[in-house]
Amino acid sequence: MGLVPEVLNKNKMETLKGDYAIGHVRYSTTGSSILKNAQPFMIKHNRLSVSIAHNGNLVNAGKLKRELEKQGSIFHSTMDSEIVLHLLVRSKQEALEDKLIEALDKCDGAFTMLFLSDKKIIGVRDPQGFHPLCLGKKGDSFVLSSETCSLDLIEAEFIREVEPGEMVVITENGVESRRLKKKCEPAPCIFEFIYFARPDSFIFGDSVYQVRERLGVQLAKDNFVEADLVMSIPDSGNYAALGYARESGIPFEFGMIRNHYIGRTFIQPSQEMRQHGVRIKLNPIKEAIRGKKVIVVEDSIVRGITTSSRIKAIREAGAKEIHMRISCPPIKHPCFYGIDFPSKKELIANQIKDVDAIGDFIGVDSLKYLSVEGMMKAVSKGCNSFCTACFTGVYPTKVCKNSRKSDFDS
Amino acid sequence: MGLVPEVLNKNKMETLKGDYAIGHVRYSTTGSSILKNAQPFMIKHNRLSVSIAHNGNLVNAGKLKRELEKQGSIFHSTMDSEIVLHLLVRSKQEALEDKLIEALDKCDGAFTMLFLSDKKIIGVRDPQGFHPLCLGKKGDSFVLSSETCSLDLIEAEFIREVEPGEMVVITENGVESRRLKKKCEPAPCIFEFIYFARPDSFIFGDSVYQVRERLGVQLAKDNFVEADLVMSIPDSGNYAALGYARESGIPFEFGMIRNHYIGRTFIQPSQEMRQHGVRIKLNPIKEAIRGKKVIVVEDSIVRGITTSSRIKAIREAGAKEIHMRISCPPIKHPCFYGIDFPSKKELIANQIKDVDAIGDFIGVDSLKYLSVEGMMKAVSKGCNSFCTACFTGVYPTKVCKNSRKSDFDS
Amino acid sequence: MGLVPEVLNKNKMETLKGDYAIGHVRYSTTGSSILKNAQPFMIKHNRLSVSIAHNGNLVNAGKLKRELEKQGSIFHSTMDSEIVLHLLVRSKQEALEDKLIEALDKCDGAFTMLFLSDKKIIGVRDPQGFHPLCLGKKGDSFVLSSETCSLDLIEAEFIREVEPGEMVVITENGVESRRLKKKCEPAPCIFEFIYFARPDSFIFGDSVYQVRERLGVQLAKDNFVEADLVMSIPDSGNYAALGYARESGIPFEFGMIRNHYIGRTFIQPSQEMRQHGVRIKLNPIKEAIRGKKVIVVEDSIVRGITTSSRIKAIREAGAKEIHMRISCPPIKHPCFYGIDFPSKKELIANQIKDVDAIGDFIGVDSLKYLSVEGMMKAVSKGCNSFCTACFTGVYPTKVCKNSRKSDFDS
Amino acid sequence: MGLVPEVLNKNKMETLKGDYAIGHVRYSTTGSSILKNAQPFMIKHNRLSVSIAHNGNLVNAGKLKRELEKQGSIFHSTMDSEIVLHLLVRSKQEALEDKLIEALDKCDGAFTMLFLSDKKIIGVRDPQGFHPLCLGKKGDSFVLSSETCSLDLIEAEFIREVEPGEMVVITENGVESRRLKKKCEPAPCIFEFIYFARPDSFIFGDSVYQVRERLGVQLAKDNFVEADLVMSIPDSGNYAALGYARESGIPFEFGMIRNHYIGRTFIQPSQEMRQHGVRIKLNPIKEAIRGKKVIVVEDSIVRGITTSSRIKAIREAGAKEIHMRISCPPIKHPCFYGIDFPSKKELIANQIKDVDAIGDFIGVDSLKYLSVEGMMKAVSKGCNSFCTACFTGVYPTKVCKNSRKSDFDS
Repeated sequence: MGLVPEVLNKNKMETLKGDYAIGHVRYSTTGSSILKNAQPFMIKHNRLSVSIAHNGNLVNAGKLKRELEKQGSIFHSTMDSEIVLHLLVRSKQEALEDKLIEALDKCDGAFTMLFLSDKKIIGVRDPQGFHPLCLGKKGDSFVLSSETCSLDLIEAEFIREVEPGEMVVITENGVESRRLKKKCEPAPCIFEFIYFARPDSFIFGDSVYQVRERLGVQLAKDNFVEADLVMSIPDSGNYAALGYARESGIPFEFGMIRNHYIGRTFIQPSQEMRQHGVRIKLNPIKEAIRGKKVIVVEDSIVRGITTSSRIKAIREAGAKEIHMRISCPPIKHPCFYGIDFPSKKELIANQIKDVDAIGDFIGVDSLKYLSVEGMMKAVSKGCNSFCTACFTGVYPTKVCKNSRKSDFDS
Repeated sequence: MGLVPEVLNKNKMETLKGDYAIGHVRYSTTGSSILKNAQPFMIKHNRLSVSIAHNGNLVNAGKLKRELEKQGSIFHSTMDSEIVLHLLVRSKQEALEDKLIEALDKCDGAFTMLFLSDKKIIGVRDPQGFHPLCLGKKGDSFVLSSETCSLDLIEAEFIREVEPGEMVVITENGVESRRLKKKCEPAPCIFEFIYFARPDSFIFGDSVYQVRERLGVQLAKDNFVEADLVMSIPDSGNYAALGYARESGIPFEFGMIRNHYIGRTFIQPSQEMRQHGVRIKLNPIKEAIRGKKVIVVEDSIVRGITTSSRIKAIREAGAKEIHMRISCPPIKHPCFYGIDFPSKKELIANQIKDVDAIGDFIGVDSLKYLSVEGMMKAVSKGCNSFCTACFTGVYPTKVCKNSRKSDFDS
Repeated sequence: MGLVPEVLNKNKMETLKGDYAIGHVRYSTTGSSILKNAQPFMIKHNRLSVSIAHNGNLVNAGKLKRELEKQGSIFHSTMDSEIVLHLLVRSKQEALEDKLIEALDKCDGAFTMLFLSDKKIIGVRDPQGFHPLCLGKKGDSFVLSSETCSLDLIEAEFIREVEPGEMVVITENGVESRRLKKKCEPAPCIFEFIYFARPDSFIFGDSVYQVRERLGVQLAKDNFVEADLVMSIPDSGNYAALGYARESGIPFEFGMIRNHYIGRTFIQPSQEMRQHGVRIKLNPIKEAIRGKKVIVVEDSIVRGITTSSRIKAIREAGAKEIHMRISCPPIKHPCFYGIDFPSKKELIANQIKDVDAIGDFIGVDSLKYLSVEGMMKAVSKGCNSFCTACFTGVYPTKVCKNSRKSDFDS
Repeated sequence: MGLVPEVLNKNKMETLKGDYAIGHVRYSTTGSSILKNAQPFMIKHNRLSVSIAHNGNLVNAGKLKRELEKQGSIFHSTMDSEIVLHLLVRSKQEALEDKLIEALDKCDGAFTMLFLSDKKIIGVRDPQGFHPLCLGKKGDSFVLSSETCSLDLIEAEFIREVEPGEMVVITENGVESRRLKKKCEPAPCIFEFIYFARPDSFIFGDSVYQVRERLGVQLAKDNFVEADLVMSIPDSGNYAALGYARESGIPFEFGMIRNHYIGRTFIQPSQEMRQHGVRIKLNPIKEAIRGKKVIVVEDSIVRGITTSSRIKAIREAGAKEIHMRISCPPIKHPCFYGIDFPSKKELIANQIKDVDAIGDFIGVDSLKYLSVEGMMKAVSKGCNSFCTACFTGVYPTKVCKNSRKSDFDS
């Protein structure tokens, strides 16, 4: 538990031996942030050792866990991921891959998972493919990662995305592809494009950076306003802001500067800060803003609290008018698939239905969101059946009433 | 994991709330010293929370674990203690106490255990009562502890020992007594008297200090030798040495001084030092020893390595003759009930059958052990059916061939 | 010693009492990074307690220290800053301010200093004003800081810059202004504008952000080239790149993305990383760069090693042509006033005289620097007598042959 | 700062290079326990590096420090030891040894000191020789230590004690002996024999263990009482108790057992615990004491608070009568030479003049101290002019009114 460079420092790394390894960076959206919930999570059962790393959220976790406990299983974490391992050891199949397929076909929801066993790494994406998983290669070694940007970091070559419902098995003989049995319409998470994925990644068949620029271009087409300059709330709003500036012809400026020395708290779990709207200190450039009519582009608004404090800072720096443009529609509905939104009541667009009223709350002179249609136009290239549940309320799986934290943490 | 005053420092203690608590100080004789093997070990299962602290060793652990894994149980530690919890959740009994009785009746070997559940502490001693457990009271609160010396530390009153096969249940209504179903001849561990228990404790119906003095008196009766002074290897040999001096009329001297500043390493797990023969630095008093014929009394010899280095130091301090007297018989056999002896091959009396040859190895002018009969004479007061397996090889339970560490650690 | 949020964490902050405080963030350019060299550095002498925090470098430190040692002074750090305190306690003046003026008039070089004594904070800037110092106010309290961006962080109001040769004395009666006796031509460090100061600061009478944009504009005027896009090496090159794009009419793109999770090592002292050319991980956006002719704008080149690895990454991402433009002249000479450049031999422009050859080394298709004249045009607004020694070799003070680290560290 | 095995752990030790080293274990009797007061204390001055380790207390420290500060010296610690270094660098002598002799001849009081300079260790004992210093040899290497027990620990050979007023200089050429100029009557601290030195050390020409036994013998001669057993407050009272038992013919028993697991806090500075009367947990053996008339022997009484809590514990364990015998006279006067007694007001024998009244306070049936004459009879063998100031009030040096902590700490 802790920050990666602290947990896996040089000394630790040098003690690690072997040819196969998996790791995990997780905010534990289901299950609290304590040591026993750290992943990868390992079990030894008879002669089998298996570790799991899980990105996503099972929607039928509560039901599965209750059934397993009735049969005498003891859970040692509060993570939904542990369920898969209990299903696994109870499978009568012979081969690990077959046991896993049997176990995973009982699971509903979002699961991008890695398993490490003796001389074998198995990667799997749920049949709807909510979250991304890619396959890379460095020298003779294969790599699996959620996003392609990590392949770049280690200078590995990107081979292809793992497909929804696909299981890839990496051994010394190379990569083998298997299939889960359940068939569904793919439903990749559109919010990965809007905010969650890194701009230097390539997911769901497209460049995240270019999708965001196109969202900004579309935003300028649909919601133009005259102004002296376009700026973003850095860094997440940068790319849509640049798209907006280019399409509108209004100059782009770095109106706010990020303080890099405060940034490290960003991924510390169990702090208020880890939310989407984390309060990273940003300082406006007064001399660039003073007396100007500015367009502020942001990728999304969740609670609205951080945004309104940013707007206040821009106002105090002397902006004459502030027009806010958001490169996605209002977020009104909870996510059951692993994006760590706050509760419904904390989503500002769920509480305030009128967009102008949200603008008043945030303190801007005008506020416009990109429409669902506009968003789809900008996004659609590699794929066109996305999960847009947080915007539309249309969920691609049956959702249990209690399919979230409450099942496990209390 | 760590030393008690470091793990439970003042800051930690102040954060602990509630009216019921259990703790554990353990060298983990079965299962390696890693965090997941730290006790108390807690599970949550359905609406039940149970913690366990275990002193002793189950002799049928391997068999029980294999059966449970076949039925789909996943073990999260390598401790035999976890077995009890898996048996517990599979019991069809209603009440926790009844579930426990059903589970424990399947366990063979030594188990002094505490369980903590919601508003309830349960203490239990195996039917043979290998290790001690006592009940105390401080104000209105009840306390369970292995030894009475801890009652003194917290100024609690000693009420009585928990009996072999007894289960005591502490709730807000007071103490209730239950019984395990299995009936056996009691077999308390005589090595608790010889070395393991603290001298200021009262166990198995007798004072440890006085038993040790009587062992020294008996040793002088059976193995007298003329000398200028009697000294001990401190601190464990002190009491038998004093008994020997008194019975023999030869003056007692503090011939060796313990260095208190090195002592803290004594209970650090996973070091060679934690063994019975830990190398605590002792310094001889040259001026008291030089030119003298000395009798050195020690409670026991395990490997013989530490002893011979002590004898070497006494010799170098100028002793003219060294006669060693041991207040127990030669230790020849392994313990399966929780005393952390080294392997058979490392027990010097197992390897060297002739006592004089052991004396030569250690470097003394003469070596005598107390006989089994002498030991029983000195000990017998509160009880007379002890486990003396380490001396005699007669084990009071059926012992599986692989009933030790190998089952769990590998 | 350590990172500010770790050293001054919440617990520590809560234990600090009093109405006056000074702090320091320093890479200890003279004197090694060990605890006794941490600042603020405090002495107690007779009834006087004084702490010092020093930004800059004294050029006659070696000579002063040798004289003081001959007179019996013992130095307890290897920092040039300690010299001022020894001069101070030897002054025969009565008032602390007068003692300080006497002491500082013996010091040559760059010193922006804060002193804390009983109920008094004294700030001072050397007569040439190499580095910035500003005065702010929050409520009734006064604040001194090197840069105005820290006033923004604590929401304090910017009052004015402290002038070269000025000493400001903050007490409960407000702020009083004094003057050092030595008179010189001001020589503010132009490299503060180029790279060192934060873009959201206002120093030497101008906005750092706007100066950098103007440097980029001038760079485009003097060194235009046709291309598909303008990008920067983030973050330091961002502002000049934007200026270049605007002036040239070539679109600006975020061609490289900074990995925020690696950034924290940036200010750790005693690592190679703390140099100007620190290897912060930057990842190119392949889809934006592939097949394009790109202009890469950087603020400056020091060793050239980091730059060439960035260029390599951009090349591998698929750029067709790379034209590098630097918003300052070649850095050829060492700094004796506190900017932590590497040794002469490590400055690439000192070793390779020909600009095209530097371009070859770095691996670009063309390389152009801004000229000294171009730089002065863009900068000159609030001031026009800068220290440009690192570019021109013209030093504004007499420089001892050994006026750097060697005096103190060995 | 910290415990020796933590500060100088195995990793640290392995990084230490060189052929000369000094160390220090100190409770810093003058100067508070903070890092800058840790010893050895090192200075670099010109080309000279010197470290100092000091046991004892200078009685004219305040006066010397004021004079040095007037001359411009800055003190960086609050330890009197630093004075010697400032005197040293101001000496006009050539050789380090001569500088030191000049500096030390200005110092009054107790100083056993080690100095480390380039390829040279210098040990010195003040002219009155308050505290011990011995010279040993291991292989070809020489060792200096306060007590001989540390020679035993490293298996070095004891050569001789360093004499009062002697300076020994260890270089690669062997040991050379020099003399301080000041001549005085020797005044070794008798309290080293009573309590402070370790029983396994040989100091001031005698065995500490045997002196303590003789003190017990003398105590029995002068203050006999009938009883069932003699016991001590372990460990410091053990040896006198054994002497008492032997002389009186009353059996010795271990009536109290020390808890080794609490002992480690003993030498932690800046805790109340470090006082002579540290509250080490001791537990009485009820079965040995119950219903008995006991003689309790202790080496000394300082505050009386710890003693009375021990007596209370013995009473509660069931003792019928308690007769306390102390192997030294009442401690009535402060020590200015480095023994860390509490203030005058806290010394029970300074506050309560009547011995029986002290006995009442402590809760014993009778209390007897050894007389000054009795003590001298038992001690005198190697030496007969001791400092007995804490018992008699006769100080062997001129004592400044403020010669203690107040000078430095406030």
